Amino acid sequence: MDKYKVTHRLLRQSIKSLVNRQLTSNNPIYRFISAFPLGNGGRNPQLYRSFGSLATKVERNPSFSSLNSDDLSYFKGVLGEKNVVQDEDRLETANIDWMHKYKGFSKLLLLPRNTEEVSKILEYCNSRRLAVVPQGGNTGLVGGSVPVFDEVIINVGSMNKIIAFDKVSGILVCEAGCILENLISYLDNQGFVMPLDLGAKGSCQIGGNVSTNAGGLRFVRYGSLHGNVLGLEAVLANGDVLDMLGTLRKDNTGYDLKHLFIGSEGSLGIVTKVSILTPPKLSSVNIAFLACEDYLSCQKLLSEAKRKLGEILSAFEFLDSHAMDLVLNHLEGVRNPLSSAVHNFYLLIETTGSDESYDKEKLEAFLLHSMESGLISDGVLAQDINQASSFWRIREDQKH
Amino acid sequence: MDKYKVTHRLLRQSIKSLVNRQLTSNNPIYRFISAFPLGNGGRNPQLYRSFGSLATKVERNPSFSSLNSDDLSYFKGVLGEKNVVQDEDRLETANIDWMHKYKGFSKLLLLPRNTEEVSKILEYCNSRRLAVVPQGGNTGLVGGSVPVFDEVIINVGSMNKIIAFDKVSGILVCEAGCILENLISYLDNQGFVMPLDLGAKGSCQIGGNVSTNAGGLRFVRYGSLHGNVLGLEAVLANGDVLDMLGTLRKDNTGYDLKHLFIGSEGSLGIVTKVSILTPPKLSSVNIAFLACEDYLSCQKLLSEAKRKLGEILSAFEFLDSHAMDLVLNHLEGVRNPLSSAVHNFYLLIETTGSDESYDKEKLEAFLLHSMESGLISDGVLAQDINQASSFWRIREDQKH
Repeated sequence: MDKYKVTHRLLRQSIKSLVNRQLTSNNPIYRFISAFPLGNGGRNPQLYRSFGSLATKVERNPSFSSLNSDDLSYFKGVLGEKNVVQDEDRLETANIDWMHKYKGFSKLLLLPRNTEEVSKILEYCNSRRLAVVPQGGNTGLVGGSVPVFDEVIINVGSMNKIIAFDKVSGILVCEAGCILENLISYLDNQGFVMPLDLGAKGSCQIGGNVSTNAGGLRFVRYGSLHGNVLGLEAVLANGDVLDMLGTLRKDNTGYDLKHLFIGSEGSLGIVTKVSILTPPKLSSVNIAFLACEDYLSCQKLLSEAKRKLGEILSAFEFLDSHAMDLVLNHLEGVRNPLSSAVHNFYLLIETTGSDESYDKEKLEAFLLHSMESGLISDGVLAQDINQASSFWRIREDQKH
Repeated sequence: MDKYKVTHRLLRQSIKSLVNRQLTSNNPIYRFISAFPLGNGGRNPQLYRSFGSLATKVERNPSFSSLNSDDLSYFKGVLGEKNVVQDEDRLETANIDWMHKYKGFSKLLLLPRNTEEVSKILEYCNSRRLAVVPQGGNTGLVGGSVPVFDEVIINVGSMNKIIAFDKVSGILVCEAGCILENLISYLDNQGFVMPLDLGAKGSCQIGGNVSTNAGGLRFVRYGSLHGNVLGLEAVLANGDVLDMLGTLRKDNTGYDLKHLFIGSEGSLGIVTKVSILTPPKLSSVNIAFLACEDYLSCQKLLSEAKRKLGEILSAFEFLDSHAMDLVLNHLEGVRNPLSSAVHNFYLLIETTGSDESYDKEKLEAFLLHSMESGLISDGVLAQDINQASSFWRIREDQKH
């Protein structure tokens, strides 16, 4: 009952902070609706907010404070000298998004090492009215992880510990700054897989994945993070720590607040810990790369794959010829595994199961049937792990 | 952008209504923490609310109005005479929960036929301060679907239309009052399955399933409704209709508010429509009924089943000997499929795949191995669909 009362109180605070929040420039939601930054990109940015055909200029909200030396002393006291970063080169990196489309002007990057430090930072910034922007691997493509003006950047990358893993249930509990690829390797060693995989895995962090509700390459098999994330810990704007770090699959007590944090881009709080359900690793993986001449056939092929490959289908990815050209022309060492003829669409189909020969036979039969029925015009099955990786690179490297 | 603005406004209202909501007797959350109704069950109920060892008496909040003849006229005008139920026998049924543990004293049962009618009812009740309780199939086991005092019962069972089904994506859109078993049959005819199945399927409704975040018998394969429900329509306490009825699997626009309604038992609004992702039906189903002598072996068996049956495992259900005794002693026509020896634990394992002979072979090998390694002490594989149904009855009828 105590748990319920505490959650209820924190919910009220969280919601109050949400309702009171204005659409100011440091709010990711604001940036979400700022479709077209039309400015000069200089020190005096001219950003525009666009609603349909209307565009209004965005300016720094003057009610936010600017950093002073007392602020820096406070942060150094809490985090230690080296985790309070003012170095221009490091700030330059943290101010610019992965696509180099958005550039902020933050003078301060903070690197907390645990939840308590995140809480102290937020409590202080809230009391001083200092705007903040949470940052993980900074691999997002929509500018959500960089400042617009001079927000303090809070990067959780130093919070990268795996807290627990239960081999019976497959439930992993870890800190938000864990890099996705490290989690994938860790689980692989334990005989499990992350239900989430994406091209940016070498840099992106699980806290950012959760905050942006990343979909990724395993979506068709394992579904969304709303289904796989079992619990979260998050720090609210006023420094309160909301503990929703459950590891129970069927937990229906009270409102399931964690879902508000999944996909809300840090605007309701900073995710600091995650518990996630991971399925056991299955031994047999097969990959095919196919060509398809019209979109309707691609659609039909998805339907058929879901039905005929059913339980072993683990990925169904799609490229049009334009995306394929970009990958082939701009990336070293990537080549089209199909004949040189140009096709309109390309598909990558992966199966994952527990029986090598059965799975392969099944995928081959599916491809043969699809070829005969004219749904695909060409196709090739990866013969070894190198070929499999090269097929995946075509899809994953589209982000470059 | 308009969609975003509207959602944002409605969110504020919804949250305002949530924050302002007191823990009054008509609030399911209140009932959630009313663990022990210690009253005399008469017209003047003595209900107690319990926090740990403390218990305080629950009384009807006097700030709520009582029904008058103007109210009845209004409801008859909106819903038509026959959907405004005052008949004592019908009210008796609607006032009592399925387990006959809780009994309310409502004088009025309303049967809206569409979202607009639900909206008009709620708007009116809100303005008149009439307490309400939403009701679906009334199959819940915790008293959430019946009134505590004289709340107006709003039963959505007449809203039972299937609105759309997309055979390419497998996405079903339907009204909240659709009975789960009807949806299962509908989808079966289309070659798909509901990701949710439970013993009460013949009476329970999808709106109630969503509002209570029902888990059910397919949980181990398809996961929670938070993963499978793609969209919702809900009516807030003031009558506003919150349209979150998306059918896009990767929709990350704005806050994902629908999750607040999944599992919140109608306390934030009444769910009126649901869109849900359904997987294609696979042709081969195999079921085994096993005996296990200690709990640790059951746990190990779950781990092994996830790994060895992997992609085809579709159910893993558990009974202890006490539950088994109850089923065998109190239900007609149910018998223990195993030898008459008493075992400590029983397990039902189901596989669903696309290849009959392969799946059966695999399950048989798994059972043989589990028997040899001593994890199970006995086991039997269903030989036909009748035997399969009889195995399922043991598990499903535990609710009786």
